Amino acid sequence: MERIESKTVYEGPIAGVRIDTFRYPDGGTAERQVVTHPGAVTVVAYDDEHVWLVRQPREPVSDPSLLELPAGKLDVEGETPLECAQRELAEEIGKSAARWRELKRFYVSPGLTEEVMYLFLASELEDVEHEPDPNERIEIVPWPLADIDGAIAACEDSKSLVGLLMLRDMLR
Amino acid sequence: MERIESKTVYEGPIAGVRIDTFRYPDGGTAERQVVTHPGAVTVVAYDDEHVWLVRQPREPVSDPSLLELPAGKLDVEGETPLECAQRELAEEIGKSAARWRELKRFYVSPGLTEEVMYLFLASELEDVEHEPDPNERIEIVPWPLADIDGAIAACEDSKSLVGLLMLRDMLR
Repeated sequence: MERIESKTVYEGPIAGVRIDTFRYPDGGTAERQVVTHPGAVTVVAYDDEHVWLVRQPREPVSDPSLLELPAGKLDVEGETPLECAQRELAEEIGKSAARWRELKRFYVSPGLTEEVMYLFLASELEDVEHEPDPNERIEIVPWPLADIDGAIAACEDSKSLVGLLMLRDMLR
Repeated sequence: MERIESKTVYEGPIAGVRIDTFRYPDGGTAERQVVTHPGAVTVVAYDDEHVWLVRQPREPVSDPSLLELPAGKLDVEGETPLECAQRELAEEIGKSAARWRELKRFYVSPGLTEEVMYLFLASELEDVEHEPDPNERIEIVPWPLADIDGAIAACEDSKSLVGLLMLRDMLR
């Protein structure tokens, strides 16, 4: 499969849209719409008692708010996914972690968007100075590890479900 | 939180883009970009020996192909998510199922798009007549249930990971 043409048809604040044309090994061609995205990180941060979640408004999906793992877009030039994850954990939860591991890398919706999610596990947490961004309206939710099933039931987005399901498996 | 304005700024074959303006309880307002989407279904179909996967080209993410659970968009007027899941299982895998259960409903990327994924569990499978769509280039992959860990390692998209992680948990 070879991309033989690529046109940007829309550019927006979070994502744009491209129309790409592909040629397949059998000679056929097809146009595909691609929602562009810089990629993002998610952090499963836990200590002996809690996994650290956030509650925040998610206007695109019209809920008043969603319970999620801390996360953020790769929107700082030159920053690696791990550095972005470390920054987001400090900004959203007010923690640093001595141990980091990449758990999984996945596409959130490969038929729609190129968005890649880097999922990290963070442990051996310590408090850091923390000035929450007032525009983000993020509430920190320390969720008891003993009730990780309840967190899985309460979360409604793919990155949080993948992260919490993998954490539950590791804690068994 | 209240939506006070909504503008469609792009319409495309798979998804469009809206810019919505919201007013928060504290009086502040914010503009949010929303990638529109009709929603989609995914099916975790399994029998005594296999969980049924597909391998297909996913141009937006530039891989030659991805290993995934069977899935499809809610793009038929009046069709329920369950009916869509039953149709996709027949079209992509050539199976029907006597038992169906909704496992979970989730947003694939709530900061980016309104796309909702309905995840179904299907069991007691039977063969049905099956005429694969030649434009879809889908290869059926019966994956041994005994190696579900291998399927989780090989899959790289959020819906397949959530479905396979939940299936592994149920089979224990």
